Amino acid sequence: MAETAEVTENAVPEKAYSLDPKTIAAILYAVDIEDREQLIALMEPMHAADIADLLEQVNTFDRSRLIRLYGREFDGEILSELEESLREDVISVLHPEVLAEAVRELDSDDVVDIVEDLDAEQQTAILDVLEDADRVAVQQALSYPEFSAGRLMQRELVMSPEHWSVGEAIDHLRAMPEADLPEQFYHITLVDPRLHPVGNVTLGKLMRSRRDVPLSSIKEDLFRVIPVDQAESDVAYAFNQYHLISAPVVDADGRLVGVITIDDAMAVLDEEHEEDILRLAGVGEESSLADRVVDTTKRRFPWLAVNLVTSILASMVIAQFDVAIAQIVALAVLMPIVASMGGNAGTQSLTVAVRALATKDLTGSNVWRVIRREVLVGLINGCIFAVLMGIVGLVWFGSPALGYVIAAAMVINLVVAGLAGTGIPIVLDRLGVDPALASGAFVTTVTDVVGFFAFLGLAVLVLL
Amino acid sequence: MAETAEVTENAVPEKAYSLDPKTIAAILYAVDIEDREQLIALMEPMHAADIADLLEQVNTFDRSRLIRLYGREFDGEILSELEESLREDVISVLHPEVLAEAVRELDSDDVVDIVEDLDAEQQTAILDVLEDADRVAVQQALSYPEFSAGRLMQRELVMSPEHWSVGEAIDHLRAMPEADLPEQFYHITLVDPRLHPVGNVTLGKLMRSRRDVPLSSIKEDLFRVIPVDQAESDVAYAFNQYHLISAPVVDADGRLVGVITIDDAMAVLDEEHEEDILRLAGVGEESSLADRVVDTTKRRFPWLAVNLVTSILASMVIAQFDVAIAQIVALAVLMPIVASMGGNAGTQSLTVAVRALATKDLTGSNVWRVIRREVLVGLINGCIFAVLMGIVGLVWFGSPALGYVIAAAMVINLVVAGLAGTGIPIVLDRLGVDPALASGAFVTTVTDVVGFFAFLGLAVLVLL
Repeated sequence: MAETAEVTENAVPEKAYSLDPKTIAAILYAVDIEDREQLIALMEPMHAADIADLLEQVNTFDRSRLIRLYGREFDGEILSELEESLREDVISVLHPEVLAEAVRELDSDDVVDIVEDLDAEQQTAILDVLEDADRVAVQQALSYPEFSAGRLMQRELVMSPEHWSVGEAIDHLRAMPEADLPEQFYHITLVDPRLHPVGNVTLGKLMRSRRDVPLSSIKEDLFRVIPVDQAESDVAYAFNQYHLISAPVVDADGRLVGVITIDDAMAVLDEEHEEDILRLAGVGEESSLADRVVDTTKRRFPWLAVNLVTSILASMVIAQFDVAIAQIVALAVLMPIVASMGGNAGTQSLTVAVRALATKDLTGSNVWRVIRREVLVGLINGCIFAVLMGIVGLVWFGSPALGYVIAAAMVINLVVAGLAGTGIPIVLDRLGVDPALASGAFVTTVTDVVGFFAFLGLAVLVLL
Repeated sequence: MAETAEVTENAVPEKAYSLDPKTIAAILYAVDIEDREQLIALMEPMHAADIADLLEQVNTFDRSRLIRLYGREFDGEILSELEESLREDVISVLHPEVLAEAVRELDSDDVVDIVEDLDAEQQTAILDVLEDADRVAVQQALSYPEFSAGRLMQRELVMSPEHWSVGEAIDHLRAMPEADLPEQFYHITLVDPRLHPVGNVTLGKLMRSRRDVPLSSIKEDLFRVIPVDQAESDVAYAFNQYHLISAPVVDADGRLVGVITIDDAMAVLDEEHEEDILRLAGVGEESSLADRVVDTTKRRFPWLAVNLVTSILASMVIAQFDVAIAQIVALAVLMPIVASMGGNAGTQSLTVAVRALATKDLTGSNVWRVIRREVLVGLINGCIFAVLMGIVGLVWFGSPALGYVIAAAMVINLVVAGLAGTGIPIVLDRLGVDPALASGAFVTTVTDVVGFFAFLGLAVLVLL
């Protein structure tokens, strides 16, 4: 079933939501001939998120020219949607007045998101142009730890005392000034006299109930409160796990201080996944296509350096068997196969384990069963590939003994791969290290070293 | 800054939202002594999603006993939250009457989600217990392609003619029977006389406006319509890119047929990411910790088989140089380093390219610049590691010539890694193949073959 769908998905000739190359070309042409009117006409129908994508896709030179020509039309939403790594560049190109106007339009949580990643000078420049109330709100948000619920929440919210009726809540809502309201909201949060949130009422329910109905009787069943210092990854998990639409955020005393909505949680979920994928591949987070060559090189270097050390380690194992290799060159030909199969099997186990840890599916109650399963899978696949490789060894080099040796090494390495691929991320997680970050290097080192040692060691025992 | 946050995130002693091991132990104890009252008391406060996680974490034997003892308390939400791979097992354990009751409680889109993955017999069993109207709705949804917007949408929605006033819409909303309403809704969709959606009005705006205000004057600026046959991955992209909360779904004639809400889009985004991570690691999708050993083994086998073929290919390259290796065993010792560095660098480029394709950031307009950047990064890192490895070769084996050879091979292989790591996913994507699925095997084959060939070939030229 999955195959059919893939075909359908990919057979669509035009890719949905991709930027149209013709539009991009027309925009760049307008920039070339400095036709401001034409540029504005072309970009007017575009969503800020698409404009941000456009700025990420063009080169630095075109980007600066485009921003300068676009001038006052540049709005805060575009800045919000831009990748963090590009924001400093773009801000430094923007005219201070344009920047001030752009930032003033934004909600305080969006300003926080922009400001938190800037250098001190740009931070001050932006804080200075905000109105006093907004500046205080942004500074307050910045006082919460990075990547916490406090940074994610918005302070504009609609609440009502729990003893109010539907009619009272509606009248209150109508009387609130527009500026105090969130841009979008879906619930009214009920609070007790100490400002502790006790429940949510959806606007739909509110609207369909008679005015004299007490709010407390139409509360939603599902209600979760988020502590202000909770990690944003856990916030995203809670929204996804419990299908929350919005959730009140409380301080250490349980008092309502803000609200997080699902769209922000979705963005965090997306970033967390991105980070996991890049870390598993040995790419530091925040790598983006728009980064400069020097930055990308620097970011990738440490991971390659770690790999250099671990592969030298594996080579030192090989070096112990130089006499055997000189006598039987077939060993040098076949040894990478054993190591490579182990590395691949280990990466499979590792990825499943890292994901299960991230989704909280791998816990104290099933850890031993999962390790046992991975080892068993390694054993079974090891035996199958042992037979296959045994035959290859025999046919290729005409030596049954060489066949036995590679077969045995294959079984050993695939079992070790299952064990290391599951055990290493679990241990790293217990030690408080992100398993996505470091497991890969450890696991392939183990499978390389064990693979070479088992194959060459057995060869010395059996063949020499 | 990222480091600090990591520490904070991991320093939390108790993991948020993880199932409490004590609760799990108490539940399993209740199952052991068959204490139904105790079991129900323990599970009563748990969210259906957490109960599903619990069922995924315990072993098959405990799972069956737990479900039987839990009996009539088992509700449809749990079935909804369960991993697909476990649903058939759980359904086969459920008493038919319990199953019937559980399924009848669910919204039609949740039933569709459950039914679409079951075998024909279980499908019929579930469809048979539904009421006529629900069954027709489910069957209609199943007529849309798998993984399309049509399968994802709910049919219950609130719409109003575009010429209505706020007052008319509110009266209509109040008069609608509960059964026709979605469980949660945040917008009213305005339609023209041909039932084409023309805009959304949020409930918040509706509530704060005077009764005589025309709906069309308080429409939201942002409005996107989803075609019913759009791939669900594109739907998730649109929600994330444009911060949609809900979007109307239209048929080929542009008529409103349903609505998709952000919580469903978030679930799809999560699944798509999961699939990408697993595919990049050479694990078929839908692999789960609860799968049996045989299933897991079967699913991992093909990827390992592909790897076996590609690593034999690399070995055939080595075999061409057997004479040289027999003369200089140091070649056998050092060659895996060149291949391994190339493989790692290639995986880095590949992962960045696959992600950029998935997020539609890698397009016709920047493809050549991205390839050039990756090649340049490979060249710079290649030169740095060439110097390092040259020194290692010289110190370890006392041969300057060997140092030059491995240095040159390193530069070549890292440049090729950048080229292959970017080029291969782009080509696969153009061919309509999911680049996450197949790129890895191709890229490492290229870096293995080029790595061995460059190193051993240069060695023959220079050293013999």
